[in-house]
Amino acid sequence: MATSGRIFIAELGVGEQGDSIGGQVLIRGWAKFVRKTKSTTFIVLQDASGTVQCVGSAQLPVHVKREDALEIVGKPRKDERAKPLGFEVDIVEIRVIGVASESLPFPSGGNDIAEVGIETVLDYRPLSLRTDRVGTIFRIQAALVEGFREALRKRRFTEIITSKIVGGGTEGGANLFAIQYFDRVAYLAQSPQFYKEHGVLGFERVFETGHVYRAEPHATSRHLTEYYSLDFEMGFIDGPEDIIQVEREALTEIFETIKQRFEKQLAGFESYLPSMMNVPTWTFDAFVERLAKAHGRTDLIDDLNPEAERQLCTMAEQECGVAAVFVIGYPMSARPFYTHPRGDTDRAAGFDLLFRGLEITTGGQRLHTRTDLEAALRAKGVDPTVFEPHLKMFELGMPPHGGLAIGLERLTAQILGLKNIREATMYPRDMNRLSP
Amino acid sequence: MATSGRIFIAELGVGEQGDSIGGQVLIRGWAKFVRKTKSTTFIVLQDASGTVQCVGSAQLPVHVKREDALEIVGKPRKDERAKPLGFEVDIVEIRVIGVASESLPFPSGGNDIAEVGIETVLDYRPLSLRTDRVGTIFRIQAALVEGFREALRKRRFTEIITSKIVGGGTEGGANLFAIQYFDRVAYLAQSPQFYKEHGVLGFERVFETGHVYRAEPHATSRHLTEYYSLDFEMGFIDGPEDIIQVEREALTEIFETIKQRFEKQLAGFESYLPSMMNVPTWTFDAFVERLAKAHGRTDLIDDLNPEAERQLCTMAEQECGVAAVFVIGYPMSARPFYTHPRGDTDRAAGFDLLFRGLEITTGGQRLHTRTDLEAALRAKGVDPTVFEPHLKMFELGMPPHGGLAIGLERLTAQILGLKNIREATMYPRDMNRLSP
Repeated sequence: MATSGRIFIAELGVGEQGDSIGGQVLIRGWAKFVRKTKSTTFIVLQDASGTVQCVGSAQLPVHVKREDALEIVGKPRKDERAKPLGFEVDIVEIRVIGVASESLPFPSGGNDIAEVGIETVLDYRPLSLRTDRVGTIFRIQAALVEGFREALRKRRFTEIITSKIVGGGTEGGANLFAIQYFDRVAYLAQSPQFYKEHGVLGFERVFETGHVYRAEPHATSRHLTEYYSLDFEMGFIDGPEDIIQVEREALTEIFETIKQRFEKQLAGFESYLPSMMNVPTWTFDAFVERLAKAHGRTDLIDDLNPEAERQLCTMAEQECGVAAVFVIGYPMSARPFYTHPRGDTDRAAGFDLLFRGLEITTGGQRLHTRTDLEAALRAKGVDPTVFEPHLKMFELGMPPHGGLAIGLERLTAQILGLKNIREATMYPRDMNRLSP
Repeated sequence: MATSGRIFIAELGVGEQGDSIGGQVLIRGWAKFVRKTKSTTFIVLQDASGTVQCVGSAQLPVHVKREDALEIVGKPRKDERAKPLGFEVDIVEIRVIGVASESLPFPSGGNDIAEVGIETVLDYRPLSLRTDRVGTIFRIQAALVEGFREALRKRRFTEIITSKIVGGGTEGGANLFAIQYFDRVAYLAQSPQFYKEHGVLGFERVFETGHVYRAEPHATSRHLTEYYSLDFEMGFIDGPEDIIQVEREALTEIFETIKQRFEKQLAGFESYLPSMMNVPTWTFDAFVERLAKAHGRTDLIDDLNPEAERQLCTMAEQECGVAAVFVIGYPMSARPFYTHPRGDTDRAAGFDLLFRGLEITTGGQRLHTRTDLEAALRAKGVDPTVFEPHLKMFELGMPPHGGLAIGLERLTAQILGLKNIREATMYPRDMNRLSP
């Protein structure tokens, strides 16, 4: 691609460059390690494709240090000891094409990043991305998003892109960020909920991957004001079990791909990528009963707290071999107005997925008639005319439907065993943090 | 998937359901056409997978009209005349599971949508998505995004997700939407420019697909306040030609896929999906000269206007066989501060891609030393300390780099020959429009 004939490290000694052994190559990358002996300089060079050790004399013509961006003309030489490529590169020419500072808070090579505090990691996000550990987190995150899209496309879902600037909230107006929109006030969307329901009317099955916003006035290890939501919505369902089944299958496929693609890199994490096919679906009422029995808890009325979420995942692991559980049938009062009831009960056909002790998905079947929606709004004390533009869409032949949303950062953190969601967010936003 | 055994129309008579001919099936979808004769009712049913004609008696047990969501138990019967499946479905049972209004502004079947004004199309977006024409526009848009991501992943780019809530603008502060962010003011990101440059430091090659925001106080057929940007950035380049080459190849691959996947549907559009490999790269100065010669124009000093963009694409078509051209070498004064100069000139190593008369890409090589960036800021009258958090990243070994951004809605409109960008935006936002 490059006019200069630069090749990627991973292409050294393979394919068309197979004859590069003995010949001369041009490679570029960052000095991840620099080590000098009396006679020799060793540089581990890293580019987008991998790393290779380059070997030169003790006195290189230029000063080279860790993190410098380098251009090296060299001769690949076979060396059985050199992992993983089986060769090194003897330096013929070397140039520094991007100078790094002498004093940086941590190096991109080595394991020091695990000891560095999250604030420094964020302040130097580009350098942390260059480390093996943090680089792996975000490569896996990219694979999660890609896998989600792929799993849904295979199942006849169409990707949609909907506006994040809206006139009002989907759930009533709390926790909205206000935008000065010319001479009006607009808001950042809390979710694509209404748009994806509308999407069902056009395409039957839709998904969207994008940012959503919650003006949550706290900064815990689990909450962000801006997060990336993996949403889907599907029409013509029989019930919430259809949605749960799609999630089971999709996550299982995604996890399998990640285990294969990142086998080596996962060794550095307390990762958890189980088959989701055996994840049980338990009702909220059964839960509360189980928790009362097992832990003597009687405080749970309409929602679970973090401790209960952890306790339930432990139970699921003991009973079903997987530390995850779909909780269905919360009291209707605890769910948004558009939630469909479960049969004739006052329980919701909505569910959460708890995974390794944390809620990573909220979903459910939605009301699909205008009459039911109007009644539900009135029951919550809301005048239905406020939602008229949305309600109008329910006159276009809306079938029974439902869907879910997975928080990408939470999913990433949970499968990799990260303690703080900020480790799984490239540029986190919370009440206190607005940069970088 | 469905517990009821519902199958997709496209699966009728194939695969495991091959024996459905003669047997009984459960299908669901929307009534796209309903036609009655004295003895018979014909219903064209559409689901996520396709359409099939269902045939019942003149007196169905339920009232069925266009756009109703239906559930039909029926018997597939071979009929050579039935396109494209080669069979129809005899109705055994039929239920309306989502009632449509009696009065809708247009039907989803037929070609009426081409005659419907854009305002009505937007107000009834879900119904317009159900039409063949509009459905195709957004299925193709989804394929464009998918193709962009795929083409870049193949070339070792990593997908990144960066914040859309920022402390300030990348280009100085004009046209920013302000957000009330707790007790502070924040802004909606105009582009992921700085973040993707930072991403180069970690991964060498990065891409992002996401919304960007411009508070442009007008509402032309070409401008939106929120649009979807296909961004990439790559390190270790020799010059802007490397970036142009990636775009040539990526667009060519994407267009080829779309031509194959949507062959039939494209017939309804004045589509244009050429190979981009022969698109010429012309300098701005050569352009101005050509335009002066061909059209006697002497008014172009530092930028092109819409008429000039159209004239140049026509010239490119005549000379190179493709109605597109990369314009490189604009005067530096017309480009953002981070633009790299072209050699030792006062011309920029930045470029635009004009396609079928409209700019659909802006890109270029960026400055990569802190010293050059500081000088460039001062030359624009900006105090470099304002950009300190950004400039600090240029001490992490920043190599020569560059990238580009493609406006997805413009790309969609241009390849399909749509006159108004709103036709290619599911939920457009402009100075006047904030809903649906």
